[in-house]
Amino acid sequence: MIDAPTVSTDIDIEDDRIREECGVFGVFGVDNAASFAALGLHALQHRGQEACGIATSDGEIFHTERHLGLVGDNFTGDDPSERLPGHIAIGHNRYSTAGQHGLRDVQPLYSELNIGGFAIAHNGHITNAFTIKSALVEKGALFQSTSDTEVMIHLVARSSGKDLSDRFVSAIRQIDGGYAFVAMTKDCMIGARDRFGIRPLLLGRINHSYVLASESCAFDMVGAKFIREIDPGEVVVINEDGMRSFTAFPNAIKRPCIFEFVYFSRPDSIVSGKSVYEVRKRMGQRLAQETPADVDVIIPVPDSGVPAALGYSQETGIPFELGIIRNHYVGRTFIQPTQGMRDMGVRLKHSANRSMIEGKRVLLVDDSIVRGTTSTKIVRMIKAAGAKEVHFRSASPPIKFPDHYGIDMPSKDKLIASNYSLEEMRHMLEVDSLGFLSVEGLYWAMGEDMRNDDAPQYTDHCFTGDYPTPLIDRERELAGGGKQLSFLVEVA
Amino acid sequence: MIDAPTVSTDIDIEDDRIREECGVFGVFGVDNAASFAALGLHALQHRGQEACGIATSDGEIFHTERHLGLVGDNFTGDDPSERLPGHIAIGHNRYSTAGQHGLRDVQPLYSELNIGGFAIAHNGHITNAFTIKSALVEKGALFQSTSDTEVMIHLVARSSGKDLSDRFVSAIRQIDGGYAFVAMTKDCMIGARDRFGIRPLLLGRINHSYVLASESCAFDMVGAKFIREIDPGEVVVINEDGMRSFTAFPNAIKRPCIFEFVYFSRPDSIVSGKSVYEVRKRMGQRLAQETPADVDVIIPVPDSGVPAALGYSQETGIPFELGIIRNHYVGRTFIQPTQGMRDMGVRLKHSANRSMIEGKRVLLVDDSIVRGTTSTKIVRMIKAAGAKEVHFRSASPPIKFPDHYGIDMPSKDKLIASNYSLEEMRHMLEVDSLGFLSVEGLYWAMGEDMRNDDAPQYTDHCFTGDYPTPLIDRERELAGGGKQLSFLVEVA
Amino acid sequence: MIDAPTVSTDIDIEDDRIREECGVFGVFGVDNAASFAALGLHALQHRGQEACGIATSDGEIFHTERHLGLVGDNFTGDDPSERLPGHIAIGHNRYSTAGQHGLRDVQPLYSELNIGGFAIAHNGHITNAFTIKSALVEKGALFQSTSDTEVMIHLVARSSGKDLSDRFVSAIRQIDGGYAFVAMTKDCMIGARDRFGIRPLLLGRINHSYVLASESCAFDMVGAKFIREIDPGEVVVINEDGMRSFTAFPNAIKRPCIFEFVYFSRPDSIVSGKSVYEVRKRMGQRLAQETPADVDVIIPVPDSGVPAALGYSQETGIPFELGIIRNHYVGRTFIQPTQGMRDMGVRLKHSANRSMIEGKRVLLVDDSIVRGTTSTKIVRMIKAAGAKEVHFRSASPPIKFPDHYGIDMPSKDKLIASNYSLEEMRHMLEVDSLGFLSVEGLYWAMGEDMRNDDAPQYTDHCFTGDYPTPLIDRERELAGGGKQLSFLVEVA
Amino acid sequence: MIDAPTVSTDIDIEDDRIREECGVFGVFGVDNAASFAALGLHALQHRGQEACGIATSDGEIFHTERHLGLVGDNFTGDDPSERLPGHIAIGHNRYSTAGQHGLRDVQPLYSELNIGGFAIAHNGHITNAFTIKSALVEKGALFQSTSDTEVMIHLVARSSGKDLSDRFVSAIRQIDGGYAFVAMTKDCMIGARDRFGIRPLLLGRINHSYVLASESCAFDMVGAKFIREIDPGEVVVINEDGMRSFTAFPNAIKRPCIFEFVYFSRPDSIVSGKSVYEVRKRMGQRLAQETPADVDVIIPVPDSGVPAALGYSQETGIPFELGIIRNHYVGRTFIQPTQGMRDMGVRLKHSANRSMIEGKRVLLVDDSIVRGTTSTKIVRMIKAAGAKEVHFRSASPPIKFPDHYGIDMPSKDKLIASNYSLEEMRHMLEVDSLGFLSVEGLYWAMGEDMRNDDAPQYTDHCFTGDYPTPLIDRERELAGGGKQLSFLVEVA
Repeated sequence: MIDAPTVSTDIDIEDDRIREECGVFGVFGVDNAASFAALGLHALQHRGQEACGIATSDGEIFHTERHLGLVGDNFTGDDPSERLPGHIAIGHNRYSTAGQHGLRDVQPLYSELNIGGFAIAHNGHITNAFTIKSALVEKGALFQSTSDTEVMIHLVARSSGKDLSDRFVSAIRQIDGGYAFVAMTKDCMIGARDRFGIRPLLLGRINHSYVLASESCAFDMVGAKFIREIDPGEVVVINEDGMRSFTAFPNAIKRPCIFEFVYFSRPDSIVSGKSVYEVRKRMGQRLAQETPADVDVIIPVPDSGVPAALGYSQETGIPFELGIIRNHYVGRTFIQPTQGMRDMGVRLKHSANRSMIEGKRVLLVDDSIVRGTTSTKIVRMIKAAGAKEVHFRSASPPIKFPDHYGIDMPSKDKLIASNYSLEEMRHMLEVDSLGFLSVEGLYWAMGEDMRNDDAPQYTDHCFTGDYPTPLIDRERELAGGGKQLSFLVEVA
Repeated sequence: MIDAPTVSTDIDIEDDRIREECGVFGVFGVDNAASFAALGLHALQHRGQEACGIATSDGEIFHTERHLGLVGDNFTGDDPSERLPGHIAIGHNRYSTAGQHGLRDVQPLYSELNIGGFAIAHNGHITNAFTIKSALVEKGALFQSTSDTEVMIHLVARSSGKDLSDRFVSAIRQIDGGYAFVAMTKDCMIGARDRFGIRPLLLGRINHSYVLASESCAFDMVGAKFIREIDPGEVVVINEDGMRSFTAFPNAIKRPCIFEFVYFSRPDSIVSGKSVYEVRKRMGQRLAQETPADVDVIIPVPDSGVPAALGYSQETGIPFELGIIRNHYVGRTFIQPTQGMRDMGVRLKHSANRSMIEGKRVLLVDDSIVRGTTSTKIVRMIKAAGAKEVHFRSASPPIKFPDHYGIDMPSKDKLIASNYSLEEMRHMLEVDSLGFLSVEGLYWAMGEDMRNDDAPQYTDHCFTGDYPTPLIDRERELAGGGKQLSFLVEVA
Repeated sequence: MIDAPTVSTDIDIEDDRIREECGVFGVFGVDNAASFAALGLHALQHRGQEACGIATSDGEIFHTERHLGLVGDNFTGDDPSERLPGHIAIGHNRYSTAGQHGLRDVQPLYSELNIGGFAIAHNGHITNAFTIKSALVEKGALFQSTSDTEVMIHLVARSSGKDLSDRFVSAIRQIDGGYAFVAMTKDCMIGARDRFGIRPLLLGRINHSYVLASESCAFDMVGAKFIREIDPGEVVVINEDGMRSFTAFPNAIKRPCIFEFVYFSRPDSIVSGKSVYEVRKRMGQRLAQETPADVDVIIPVPDSGVPAALGYSQETGIPFELGIIRNHYVGRTFIQPTQGMRDMGVRLKHSANRSMIEGKRVLLVDDSIVRGTTSTKIVRMIKAAGAKEVHFRSASPPIKFPDHYGIDMPSKDKLIASNYSLEEMRHMLEVDSLGFLSVEGLYWAMGEDMRNDDAPQYTDHCFTGDYPTPLIDRERELAGGGKQLSFLVEVA
Repeated sequence: MIDAPTVSTDIDIEDDRIREECGVFGVFGVDNAASFAALGLHALQHRGQEACGIATSDGEIFHTERHLGLVGDNFTGDDPSERLPGHIAIGHNRYSTAGQHGLRDVQPLYSELNIGGFAIAHNGHITNAFTIKSALVEKGALFQSTSDTEVMIHLVARSSGKDLSDRFVSAIRQIDGGYAFVAMTKDCMIGARDRFGIRPLLLGRINHSYVLASESCAFDMVGAKFIREIDPGEVVVINEDGMRSFTAFPNAIKRPCIFEFVYFSRPDSIVSGKSVYEVRKRMGQRLAQETPADVDVIIPVPDSGVPAALGYSQETGIPFELGIIRNHYVGRTFIQPTQGMRDMGVRLKHSANRSMIEGKRVLLVDDSIVRGTTSTKIVRMIKAAGAKEVHFRSASPPIKFPDHYGIDMPSKDKLIASNYSLEEMRHMLEVDSLGFLSVEGLYWAMGEDMRNDDAPQYTDHCFTGDYPTPLIDRERELAGGGKQLSFLVEVA
């Protein structure tokens, strides 16, 4: 018997996810560098789908191409290295609020310095960018974008360092935050990571050529071999003589962002030497221990809840089933169905698999809960498909604090766990029970005995409020100092 | 340690799937019928992604819109019922070889009869269409498409029946094959199914309005309630006075196509009263009993192998893991990467999850094996990720015979199981063991005690060679009678 | 001093022109026939800009491509003969009300007959098409388009003639009206013209190959040599053995449409052996004699009024000046400026050349006056630019009767000269004097001594009401017989 | 008799024209400023068709939209002021070598200064831009474009002036060349012109609002009233308090570019108080006196040769005829026909009107001769159409020297008149006689008694070699100083 619900609205599970802002990629020393960059960016597509760009150098001339949309829609109908010749390439995927800034802010950014052309791509956020920018503009510097990345170009341009590596090191010593840079001049490639290693950056090789990428899955895509992570506070400069390493911050401490494991990285990536998929399964395993549930079936919220749900199932022996089916042929324009359709209660992207739900006690496992709005819609869909009970588990701890290092996240007042008790959340999600993994459990899943509260092994402020760096622009803004000088909206 | 393979070529798991040719949908008696049709077709998108079309009637004027591509790319940026007004709508999704016939063959087809305008959409294949067409052309009839569907319009047009239902019944009595039709005049909707019920067609209701669809998931999408299946050989005619049923073939026997369970239908659909997902899990369960494997991990070939792999895992207790990761952001143009990229060994759509594979004995479970070429590529990818052993299981029996009822499938000489022994296939797939579900096992998974060889419960000729109907055009072609009158290639 | 008017609305001089419905082209026996067809249609683009299509045959397979829009936007980025191979090609330009019928009605139309594939393109109108269609539909014939052209295909298909030429001759003997056909089978090309030669069709050669076209400028474009006009009522059949001619109507009389000279044909075309440009200049010369004006300057309404204005100027010695400037860079979307812009009184396509107008007595010369609405806007623009007096002359006689042979023209109640006296029109156009060429003057410009009222040398019913053929569908419609069987709107 | 030529290649008369680089427009104080800007730019479209852009301010936020292509294709399908709100707008049309620099160089350029956002658009060329840029980059300034315009932004940004007008005046005092600027901050609009008034800039009003434009035809388009020209060396600053005028160069001398009359300006524009159309007619009149021709017919090279040809005809009484017909429906892709088509000798854009040419002595009148290549093709087309003799006249003097003030012109070695004698040119053009207007004749046509060689009334270096300003970058380049720092090619 089929009886469809007609009251709920469409569920876009991606709508309430946290979003990474960027993926970066660089390659030095291959014939068709732009093709490598396109493939690497494609492998990193999950880190940003709004815009993508590549810049190359053939030793004399720079070429660049930047687009709104997916790598696979923009860079491979024809061989991109025909349009973008050169043996050096850097590339960037971006998540950004659609239509707000247009192509001006799509990276790599390029500028002419007195040492020649310079291009840069950035994952993360510079927490004192606006403060630096304000001071530079006072001196007559011109800014073309609203991107914090442009600050870095100005600092390099104005540095009195004797060569590029001096200048680059001098520049990043002036900035704070979580960041990974790949940059290039006409004959060298640069990689750099913040002093806590908050944002990831990896080094790999293809034969005698070097590759830089945000995640190891990009190396798999282009057939590169993983060498090592760029160290916190390290700057590497690669040219035809090989690679040199500079220490920008002697007292750097490794403290990578734990969200790479919880949500951002692809499950087949290896981050900080750990399989993301395995960590997520362990999160589900520990979740089962911490918050058991007396249910008939475990259903993951697709797709990122799957490993934790498998871990929960394997720990408890309760069957794992695909109770939510994803429509793979959504098409573009379905992203904005008309109001009339919304009112019809249509679910264009996901549907309940009634046969696994009807009459059963269901446990939903998701990687995290952000605002909670989508979770409620999912719960209602499961109930409408006939579940006897619905329980909910988050494979990460409650998200109580916003990020300031490049993660797109709602403000504190929108974070459900920041504003409500567990019982209030259970009531809002309309579930029979609700549970979160503990911070301790998360560290256990990471393979740590426990969190070292004096020197935490990971950047985990979203769960703990413990920010590793000062937040200068943020404090200035709270003190009434503004966030932006002028406002330009460029229509794409 | 990450060490990427550089020799294999790109794997498109969809490349070697069997493909359904169509999904159909119809609705009578709602204000914005085209919007219902767009949603219903979206839910049926898995049945055909090459083209889609909708025709409506507002009681006087017909409106139609047909496109190459997905429903979600063509029918929902704006409300389709604004462009296609009316309270009756029929729609069609099509799989077809891209670019061969252009829009001429995109359905619904429309023609003016002496009783007024008439539109029709069709899932399946008329096995004597060319024979009938040849005779009609001799008499001066004009054909606009290469579609067998158009034959049906001519038969209705030339029938001397006193009204539309008489004419339609008279027409389908002249055709053979496996088919489901939804058709419409300016004030009525028709549904019909072949005398074995080979192709599916279901009846549903939204309040007082009627809905027809190939699968129940389309009812879920539009909030319709499932009423019953259209009977084999039944013609239903729906107008503002309600629904009347006509029996076109008194001696009809129910024998639906078993491939709806094996591959075509969405897992959340209910077909012939059975949950597709559950049947597939039972196929995996029985497969485990029939062809056990001594392995460490069970990995489904995504996405259609998942339920059988879960069934196999639950039957054996061997862990189920996502060992193959799908890239959800493939983009359009990546469908045709340049040769240079292929040579780089890139895998744009799927990648191996090394942490679940390395050093392990792996069992791959897929829904079926058609040509075997993709299976071999997957096996190589799993081996390159470090598997100690690779075993392969097909959750359906060996496919030995081609279809002639609307399923797009390679010819007999391309079907691996039709040409090689089990051991030869094992060798070709480069696996340590290979196993298929038996035909008996398949019937068991369907809930039958056994196959009734005198009157099989399902159309299963692909496994057994037992075709339920004569194949007149096919015999004529084998006798040298040709397949087509003239040839027109329309550039889209 | 510049002082722009702000009250008038935008002037699109093309808006109030009469429009031809089609141009046709055919070529037999060249390697890349589609390229010839694309060029020929480009030269005939002035005869229809809404849609264009080409069909080719390579001796076995037909290829076709049909588009909305210009030839130059659709057929020449790449070599069209790569997509459309073959040594025979026919093509068609169409004027039609945008969006009403979609691609279904874009020609060439193609169908499979019992003698093989058949494609046809048509300029003109069959005045008994609906009557024939109604009878055929009663017998079960299927129509795919709303085009009268499709009737011709059915008549050929149903003919019992022994070969194609028999069938084609038999078919056109059943139809009435003004028409020129180019048609093709897989190995021959056909040309035919109605029994009065109302619509034009010319025969040319390129080396040993034959070409058919509506106007001689298409021959100039492809380097073909003009041979002769197809005779009224003649059917020519061209295949690899050469050309044969058939007489479909033994008593055919030559009476070509005089509007080809007044407006449709390109000024550099030779029609019926006469230079169109010269005829138009003679119209202006005679106009000066018949309706003199005491003015300072003669200004043509661009572009079709230019030759008559030059003729008027040369006859009188009054200076000819470009007083209206055309903007050549209008762009596509300017065709539909927003209402807000219209209210601003903008003139996107034309502007007044104030220095030639201010303080002067101006004579505007146009080729004809249809509804008069645009003429009034032009007059206002000239006055706003400071003219002391504005006089208006039409280089053709008053248009009092609608066409029924393929010319797109407003209905009788919209034709200003059909409803108002000369003085009323002068008042409506807001001019100081108004004059039209006489019918006698028009015949004089054509080089005739006088109109032969018993057997007029030209089809001139728009001026005289003297229609050469019966108007069967029109009479049937006036008697309440309807115009169409059913209605389908296809969204493009 | 029609006999088409088959040897000549396609003629694109525009191919060998001189090209202006820009048109600028600005408006302050209207509700929907972007709509005014779109219309104004449309009227100025003849000054640049490669790219267009608009920037607006609503008092707080800037909005901008920049495109490759025509205004009418980019700015008016929807009301541009909905996307670009604000009461201030500046806009720009650009001619540039297609695809070289991409959108980076499309104006208006925008930057954040310490006084807030600043946008600027520029017609002309700064002759010491590279020299200034090199010095600024040495100091760490960043450049985003290759445009000389960006130098102006840096000079304003770095000025220590107390307010915007001070800074702007200070900035332009550092630059040399021929230029007209329109610029804006969030609450004011600026207009400025070089100290010789080489490039044009006019001031107009709409009610109480101010308008700036390169030509008066833009005022006509938007219903604005012409007030006066901006003076040479004047800077005007317009805000809600009204307009203030600043004198940047006290010793400025008016010496506008004479090419505005010869070719650039629209014939209906008033430049320096003179009707462009009238000046061009006088050029033809004087040309007839200086270089008479014994011919039967005068044929203009369309479209810019028309007024001079009319002047020649009226002076001599020899008939003016349209002997070259322009195809108005060329379409986009025809711009690049395949080589196969070129070899066929097709003329897609123009054709000869044989009836006015055959057997006659023809005089062709064009506005100027640049390289002479197109002139030769036209002559051949006229001869192929049967002319008995062909004579050629240029309504401007021989072009012997390149421009350096923003006109896109071939280098000196490509200018035919710079390299060959009159008789050599006559031979190369294959004509029976050839004549140019004298410099004295040109000044007479302008209404001057004679050229004042000590202080020429117009900038006429292309004819005389007399450049009004130093050419610093040019000299530096000739001395080996380079033209550009680094090279970036942005793929659009």
